[in-house]
Amino acid sequence: MTRMARALSLGPGPAVLAFDVGGTDIKSALVDSAGSFSQVRRTPTTRGVDAARAITASLAELASPLIAAAASPVAAAGVSVPGLVDEAAGVGVLSANLGWRDAPIRDLAAEALGLPVAFGHDVRAAGVAEQAFGAARDARSAVVVVIGTGIAGAIILDGRPYAGQGFAGEIGHSLAVPDGELCPCGARGCLETVASAHSIARRYTAETGEQVRGAREVLVAALGGDAAAARIWGSAVDALAQSLARLIALLAPEVIVIGGGLSGAGDALFRPLGTRLDELLSFHARPRLVRAELGDDAGLLGTAIAARRLAGAP
Amino acid sequence: MTRMARALSLGPGPAVLAFDVGGTDIKSALVDSAGSFSQVRRTPTTRGVDAARAITASLAELASPLIAAAASPVAAAGVSVPGLVDEAAGVGVLSANLGWRDAPIRDLAAEALGLPVAFGHDVRAAGVAEQAFGAARDARSAVVVVIGTGIAGAIILDGRPYAGQGFAGEIGHSLAVPDGELCPCGARGCLETVASAHSIARRYTAETGEQVRGAREVLVAALGGDAAAARIWGSAVDALAQSLARLIALLAPEVIVIGGGLSGAGDALFRPLGTRLDELLSFHARPRLVRAELGDDAGLLGTAIAARRLAGAP
Repeated sequence: MTRMARALSLGPGPAVLAFDVGGTDIKSALVDSAGSFSQVRRTPTTRGVDAARAITASLAELASPLIAAAASPVAAAGVSVPGLVDEAAGVGVLSANLGWRDAPIRDLAAEALGLPVAFGHDVRAAGVAEQAFGAARDARSAVVVVIGTGIAGAIILDGRPYAGQGFAGEIGHSLAVPDGELCPCGARGCLETVASAHSIARRYTAETGEQVRGAREVLVAALGGDAAAARIWGSAVDALAQSLARLIALLAPEVIVIGGGLSGAGDALFRPLGTRLDELLSFHARPRLVRAELGDDAGLLGTAIAARRLAGAP
Repeated sequence: MTRMARALSLGPGPAVLAFDVGGTDIKSALVDSAGSFSQVRRTPTTRGVDAARAITASLAELASPLIAAAASPVAAAGVSVPGLVDEAAGVGVLSANLGWRDAPIRDLAAEALGLPVAFGHDVRAAGVAEQAFGAARDARSAVVVVIGTGIAGAIILDGRPYAGQGFAGEIGHSLAVPDGELCPCGARGCLETVASAHSIARRYTAETGEQVRGAREVLVAALGGDAAAARIWGSAVDALAQSLARLIALLAPEVIVIGGGLSGAGDALFRPLGTRLDELLSFHARPRLVRAELGDDAGLLGTAIAARRLAGAP
């Protein structure tokens, strides 16, 4: 956890556990009755024939020392997972990465932990945290876009995360290039195929034959005068700006928060993106365009907030 | 009012007035304590140097006989207007058609009527009515797209209309054709410039030199083998499908309701639109695509529902 996130407090309330399950590792923490995070750790994600049971069994193992360490009774746990997530039903609809489909994670986790479970989506949890403590604080409506290997989004409207039965916020899989490249999702020309950090690097290698470690290297090449790199970086920024302009026409969020690896490009991303947005919009309400503040911790923080709410905190 | 809409009842509750203010006429009605509509009429919209005062003065004139006719005390009025509408602030932000900017319509109307006023946007009111009684009933999330001279949208999420400080739902002014035709709104390539009924007719005349009375005539020509008409109709359907596919990726509504003049094309619109949507989507939750049911009455119905809610009805 970053120093900033560690310093955050959820305020007085019931003690809860938080688990942010990712493809690589599980982040876990105890939130005490003062609202402080402790026992924060990362554990490699377990795999198994039955991925959902393997992972909920790990959660139970991780929970024991946390519950033992808690000074007051633990009232609930939050569990966030990636993929398509039906929060209302408590079901992991699909995670290609973790390997489940229609898995009743909330019930499995509640049984394994012996606690009521606030079950959610990792990126929506991150969005909740950015709205509560991060770059979208004080905004009633915000969209958080996380650009890394893929592109994921979380939508917060009138103060509440909007999940759309688990299918909302998929800006990465919205049409950017008609009849464009086939996306692993099965559709063509998804924003993710043009503008994710992974795609920027992949497209540069495909065009030039040169291996790069990531989008940052493409950006450095572009700034150094490499025409192919500049074109690919520019087309990614342009596709992002177009997708955000469409989102603004529909949702008019007060703020758009961009996180994930690509947001590390800073001004090299935010300046041209803002300029393009200004060109594309007319009467529309131009939102602030800001960088995510909570980094990798946002998912764990938002998961803890959800657990606190389930346990009756305001 | 259509027979169907006349037959609708809002159920028992306080008596209210409803006014749906349009660019051409004002629709007005009394809703009695049984929830039935009566005294439904259309009056030409008054104009004046101060459009907001001229219109609220007409509302007061229309209200007198309605209040006199009411068998029980009238508890509130609903007033819906077009353009950009900030419902929370009670302000008509902009209506080029009616000629106001930042007009405090809610307060002016409340003063003129001597009643508490539920103030709203005409298309969002229509959306509320379609969800309560029409094509989106039983759906918790719906998008209503009205395609006529322009293209307007209303977004209903988790059972509530989402207004985004008045700027939400502007699918007609979302980017459809990058670097496309200049839209009167000031942006380029808005969906409205390609796919509104007006634009379909205008584009056909521009391409062929032949005058047509509307999009229906272009459709008839297309069905009769006119290549230009078929191309223009097809490009409108395609642009609509792309915009809806993007909306689905973001919001995953359970149903998309299409109303306005163009929806009168029926299968000639809905079949190819559905086929194109199926082609564009992959894992996304494919919503039902249905025709609006309440027609021109939807705005008045939704306005009455809002007035009833303001007066304390559930």
